Amino acid sequence: MKLRVALAQVNPTVGDLVANAALVRTNFKTAQDAGAHIVVFPEMVLTGYPVEDLALRPSFQLASQRALTEIAGQLTGGCVAIVGYLDQVNGAPQNMVAVISDGQVTARYAKCHLPNYGVFDEFRNFVPGDQTLLVRIHGADIGIAICEDLWIDGGITAQLADRKPGLVIVPNGSPYERAKDDTRLALVTKRARQAKAPLVYVNMTGGQDDLVFDGDSIVVGADGAVIARAPQFEDGIAVVDIDVATKTSSPDVIISEDEVSVDRALIPGVAVRLDDREEIWNAIVVGLRDYVEKNGFRSVVVGLSGGIDSALVAALAVDALGAKRVNGVAMPSKYSSEHSISDAQAFADATGIHFRTVPIAPMVDAYMNNLVLKGVAEENLQARVRGTTLMGISNQEGHLVLATGNKSELAVGYSTLYGDAVGGFAPIKDIYKTDVWALSRWRNEIARARGEAEPIPVNSIEKEPSAELRPGQKDTDSLPDYLLLDRVLTAYVDDDQGSAALIAAGFDEALVRRVIAMVDKAEYKRRQYPPGPKVSKRAFGKDRRLPMTSRWAE
Amino acid sequence: MKLRVALAQVNPTVGDLVANAALVRTNFKTAQDAGAHIVVFPEMVLTGYPVEDLALRPSFQLASQRALTEIAGQLTGGCVAIVGYLDQVNGAPQNMVAVISDGQVTARYAKCHLPNYGVFDEFRNFVPGDQTLLVRIHGADIGIAICEDLWIDGGITAQLADRKPGLVIVPNGSPYERAKDDTRLALVTKRARQAKAPLVYVNMTGGQDDLVFDGDSIVVGADGAVIARAPQFEDGIAVVDIDVATKTSSPDVIISEDEVSVDRALIPGVAVRLDDREEIWNAIVVGLRDYVEKNGFRSVVVGLSGGIDSALVAALAVDALGAKRVNGVAMPSKYSSEHSISDAQAFADATGIHFRTVPIAPMVDAYMNNLVLKGVAEENLQARVRGTTLMGISNQEGHLVLATGNKSELAVGYSTLYGDAVGGFAPIKDIYKTDVWALSRWRNEIARARGEAEPIPVNSIEKEPSAELRPGQKDTDSLPDYLLLDRVLTAYVDDDQGSAALIAAGFDEALVRRVIAMVDKAEYKRRQYPPGPKVSKRAFGKDRRLPMTSRWAE
Repeated sequence: MKLRVALAQVNPTVGDLVANAALVRTNFKTAQDAGAHIVVFPEMVLTGYPVEDLALRPSFQLASQRALTEIAGQLTGGCVAIVGYLDQVNGAPQNMVAVISDGQVTARYAKCHLPNYGVFDEFRNFVPGDQTLLVRIHGADIGIAICEDLWIDGGITAQLADRKPGLVIVPNGSPYERAKDDTRLALVTKRARQAKAPLVYVNMTGGQDDLVFDGDSIVVGADGAVIARAPQFEDGIAVVDIDVATKTSSPDVIISEDEVSVDRALIPGVAVRLDDREEIWNAIVVGLRDYVEKNGFRSVVVGLSGGIDSALVAALAVDALGAKRVNGVAMPSKYSSEHSISDAQAFADATGIHFRTVPIAPMVDAYMNNLVLKGVAEENLQARVRGTTLMGISNQEGHLVLATGNKSELAVGYSTLYGDAVGGFAPIKDIYKTDVWALSRWRNEIARARGEAEPIPVNSIEKEPSAELRPGQKDTDSLPDYLLLDRVLTAYVDDDQGSAALIAAGFDEALVRRVIAMVDKAEYKRRQYPPGPKVSKRAFGKDRRLPMTSRWAE
Repeated sequence: MKLRVALAQVNPTVGDLVANAALVRTNFKTAQDAGAHIVVFPEMVLTGYPVEDLALRPSFQLASQRALTEIAGQLTGGCVAIVGYLDQVNGAPQNMVAVISDGQVTARYAKCHLPNYGVFDEFRNFVPGDQTLLVRIHGADIGIAICEDLWIDGGITAQLADRKPGLVIVPNGSPYERAKDDTRLALVTKRARQAKAPLVYVNMTGGQDDLVFDGDSIVVGADGAVIARAPQFEDGIAVVDIDVATKTSSPDVIISEDEVSVDRALIPGVAVRLDDREEIWNAIVVGLRDYVEKNGFRSVVVGLSGGIDSALVAALAVDALGAKRVNGVAMPSKYSSEHSISDAQAFADATGIHFRTVPIAPMVDAYMNNLVLKGVAEENLQARVRGTTLMGISNQEGHLVLATGNKSELAVGYSTLYGDAVGGFAPIKDIYKTDVWALSRWRNEIARARGEAEPIPVNSIEKEPSAELRPGQKDTDSLPDYLLLDRVLTAYVDDDQGSAALIAAGFDEALVRRVIAMVDKAEYKRRQYPPGPKVSKRAFGKDRRLPMTSRWAE
């Protein structure tokens, strides 16, 4: 039988039950109008995801239940909807999916495997389910699994496979990380083959705090071959006709026995994968845009130093929000080079953002005349005057401040608390310096290919990195060369290797000890840093939770 | 048989394997010299606790294993040691206890119930054990459980009870919260009765990031009656003679069959409980002292506004570190009242701390002349100039900055990011304003009782709270009366009640909606706030993890 399934790859907002219900309603209508027999929404679409400890609040559990009942009543007609929400079962929260048929909830499935590693805390927030669910719709015996259920070998999906489903449907809240699309496809393929049934994988899009959801919804056949694949990072609904065997099993719930067909089969779309740099760029743009908009800001402000980090952040903001919603501020000090202002100006000219200059000498002098500050204390003061200036502008005009630190700096603590670390969001906090250059070059290439002005001044890309907090300062005065530093950091931070493994891999011992000591010492600073989109395997923040007080010397 | 058991209520440091091993060695010697047959250390004493994601690093797992083997070899003689550490079993981390007898590890027990709520993330960090352990020592069949194992009804301690132990030993890493000693005693009593055996409960002391461990180690008889109880918050070793039945079971491991006796039974000590205010005071003092010392600081600096919050924080710092290690800075602005300086001066005079005045007008004027800042933006500017001033002094002189915000302010966001929120530690972040007053009055009473000068100026306690950021400003311009506010906050934050429950309980609906909206909006600010000792049932921070981006309206 040809079953027409709609994959609603949508972007819910955490806690906004009304808006999320509207999202479900609108997409249900679109699916129905397209002749879909079933429409599948992402994990917990009704509450948004992840809700973190909101899941533990009984008032929120009950509100989610009420919202489900209300929306169910509105989803009438022949199209069955698969809608994720937060339920309360025996007084405890569960990550649940409802099967809604003609205005009624006819079946429910609770997520059985709760991820509690990396950025996930689901064992903290939910009670696991322990049963498979098979629902017969139009004669097809359809099994449901939720996100992590799919990732566990020999778990609930193995039990589901044993029950011989005709189709497997999987709602997800699967956050982006570099190259995750490859892992995901391999997994979906493997599970479809194990279940000997086609599999529909639906993921959400959009940003939520440090997470970005990349969509990438997939339909594969029983042989694991890709039938359809939705674009990365784009909201929308994909309608796919799938060959499904009927009456393969003994279902738990029967919704309809009558088989269906489609008049004229749709050509399934298989979206082209983005290349690595475009994928990262889009992840940051989506994460940034949603953080700004879901938090009710209209615009952002960035300190433009003329350097590469702030230019990249501002370019990302322009792509996310448009130049008219981006404000750049140059804040030269007496140690600033001439090109620091001209390169900032060049960026503003190329992109058309709002731009102003606020020299910080008068403020710095006022502190210096009233306090005895030397060396690093004086360097940090300049960064803090800039932070206070940006926050003043933010408070007065309502822009969200973007922090411009990259992952290499954050890793080794090359940053000033309450200085350049000021802000509400840090777009490139999970991007190593070497990738900062690569992304900047890539964005300029795209501009050239489109016949547009290159946003990022070539001089910002090519000049030697400097914080310009004392005369002639260079990053290399304090840090190893970034090419080498980033390799050590990737091994230590992302791959969790210890010093012995790093030295055995051929890195210089003194370098390894120096870098690791810097990383370990900077834990407190990183905790105080604003959130930013997770891009790598192991981002600082929820992904990597280390004690602030620790004397462990790796 | 009378068995002599030493309870080593000690304060390990996370990650400092060498110092923690020395702590075990020293206390083992003391126990041995006192004729103890067994010495019991707290949970994970060798690594410190909680180690958070350090547990996941293979290099740390192996280092802990090596440290255990090394220390075991040094614990020779007739005294058996029960030592907690991090193990790696089949490549995975386990929260383990080793039984060490004459230089050898003779048995191991892995924690079976892993707490993953509130401040705990153990399901993330460890793989659970699944077996009871009974070890025969001097003919007594001794069962071991670790911390959370004890809290679960019908779990591993029920299995242990079924095996008829002669004695139950429980190493713990049980953090302080208000009135937890009562809960703990009730639990220990209940489990001893269930096991029909005496129970030895050993907890650590000291501060670790946001947690404070309060000791309160306990020995109860098989009838649940208290035999001995160690003081709260004090390090030390308690030696207790316990009547233990022998050969009650079939043990898993036999260390020694020969019964022992004690020449002359020791009189067990039952420490008097601290009253509620003294308990909280000590928790903060211990948490503050350890945060400063374990992080390698020598001294602290506090901005003294003349108000009650900063006076209380400075008084706590004096008790924790001594007046010579405390620096107070008055930073008057043009809106500061005369008493703001005189009250700060009075505090310095009464306590003998270092004190200086840095007027902020020149710095504020420099910003105001170069930026257009009005209203709240101007108010925040003053707080940020103070923050930058304190950080400058900190960077120049090496003091840790203490933030002075209380829980009421943090809850409703009555605080300036990068302003008064600046600092490395926030001693009273978990203390509501009404308790700020109560603790201040209590500390002055103690001083009077001791014939010492009252540290906290009466005027600071009695004046009306004001941020003094604009002429004639009062906290009540922006906030409800603190007495009422704190009651709403306790219900909403600590007791997790929703608006419906609060209104049903008789709170004014408009007030409830106003307060809850303020609390929900301030999540980002709270995330950026420095750590501070957990005192209440639900502290902000690890205890309560809510999305920054959320549109849930309670």
